[in-house]
Amino acid sequence: MDWRARLLRMEGLAPLLGDDGGLVWGTLADAAPDAELVFLGLKDGKGCFAAVPAEGDNAPAYAIRDVWNMLGALSPGDLATYGGARSLVDWHARHRFCAKCGQPTVLAKGGWQRNCRSCGAQHFPRTDPVTIMLVEHADKLLLGRGLGWPEGRYSALAGFVEPGESIEEAVAREVLEETGVVAGSVQYIASQPWPFPSQLMLGCHAMASGEELTIDTTELADARWFTRAEVEHAMAGGADPAFLPPPQTAIAHFLLNWWIAR
Amino acid sequence: MDWRARLLRMEGLAPLLGDDGGLVWGTLADAAPDAELVFLGLKDGKGCFAAVPAEGDNAPAYAIRDVWNMLGALSPGDLATYGGARSLVDWHARHRFCAKCGQPTVLAKGGWQRNCRSCGAQHFPRTDPVTIMLVEHADKLLLGRGLGWPEGRYSALAGFVEPGESIEEAVAREVLEETGVVAGSVQYIASQPWPFPSQLMLGCHAMASGEELTIDTTELADARWFTRAEVEHAMAGGADPAFLPPPQTAIAHFLLNWWIAR
Repeated sequence: MDWRARLLRMEGLAPLLGDDGGLVWGTLADAAPDAELVFLGLKDGKGCFAAVPAEGDNAPAYAIRDVWNMLGALSPGDLATYGGARSLVDWHARHRFCAKCGQPTVLAKGGWQRNCRSCGAQHFPRTDPVTIMLVEHADKLLLGRGLGWPEGRYSALAGFVEPGESIEEAVAREVLEETGVVAGSVQYIASQPWPFPSQLMLGCHAMASGEELTIDTTELADARWFTRAEVEHAMAGGADPAFLPPPQTAIAHFLLNWWIAR
Repeated sequence: MDWRARLLRMEGLAPLLGDDGGLVWGTLADAAPDAELVFLGLKDGKGCFAAVPAEGDNAPAYAIRDVWNMLGALSPGDLATYGGARSLVDWHARHRFCAKCGQPTVLAKGGWQRNCRSCGAQHFPRTDPVTIMLVEHADKLLLGRGLGWPEGRYSALAGFVEPGESIEEAVAREVLEETGVVAGSVQYIASQPWPFPSQLMLGCHAMASGEELTIDTTELADARWFTRAEVEHAMAGGADPAFLPPPQTAIAHFLLNWWIAR
């Protein structure tokens, strides 16, 4: 039996970063004595854990901008480790009670489950599928601005898949609801976990049947069609771009480069 | 203002079916006076609702075989309506309390949300992404048998996407865990909502690097490689097939036909 174990150091839900800009690993002694521990897996022959934040110590469910910016500096491996760990401990911190009967639950199966000792219900971490899509018409792309986004930033439209929908139906509904545009020929391109708090981003491409916009201003600050030249210039970091592209860590950035290269 | 509204008739979580084999719609008076109602959308100019089952009146989270069989007889439109409605009312029935603080929650936003009046937390219906994959090697397919499945039935391997994973990573991990086979070159084919209780099935194809099997018998009763001829014969309903194919309503059935036709 090998008892070597490491603890992913976090402050609430934010990662501690070392001098080299990478994640910091401590020992299990670094966790509070009564902390719930989640087993992340094995790395370099050692069991890796993360601690569920104490009650009241968890940040809002959605990321503050500081953490988003920090993510851009992590290596892909560190990013995946932190993302999975953050989703899990955040879920535990927000699910200490049984949704079925209201009684307290306890961590089980190494942190991949919570059980209710009162009614016996089992609860599992959430992963919420979200469609994010480039909508194309006549070699132009439809991009939108969320409410409260940084000045000039436009990105791919996105929205949660709702119960009873396929990916392809969710893309068409979301585009119609947010912009009034009818879209079809949906093609899946790539996926990305996005742990704020627990999304699975489903990157797609769709073709629009027209360009007339009826923007839902409760969802979007704006939406606009951008020409291929405008997209290429903005993504190349050119001067005075038509829009500020999404950050490199976001799947929207990958999708835009995929569209340019296609 | 148009007050015309219809209620989807259900017995617990099972659909009531009419003489024509279709869903049955009643009026809101058919619901219990204190029933929570979920707004499903508009159909033929009328608002459509479903009632959350009374406490203790909901079936197990996973479908009984009777309901699965019943689904095969529904039209695609009825199937989509029932699937979405079932996912939603089942979620409400199993989430009457706040997972964050343990106090009772109330239905909000027409049934697409529950709010906690005590701590203010908002809760949303779950949609759980599940990968389901045809794994190919040398023109053969790897299919598995779940524990307790009908005699002779084999289907595509499947498993939940875990926090921190992409679709492609989930496919590779699940195939490795369940069968010991190393799979890559994952391709997304199609998706399907599967309301038992709230899955989004992500149908994929992957290529294996070899055929040696190490089956996880806690997850699977068996897994085997089937030749193209065996798959074609079984899917065509031929006599004495090598395996019993998955039911027509399942995305695995669609995936097998896609592979044959490709």
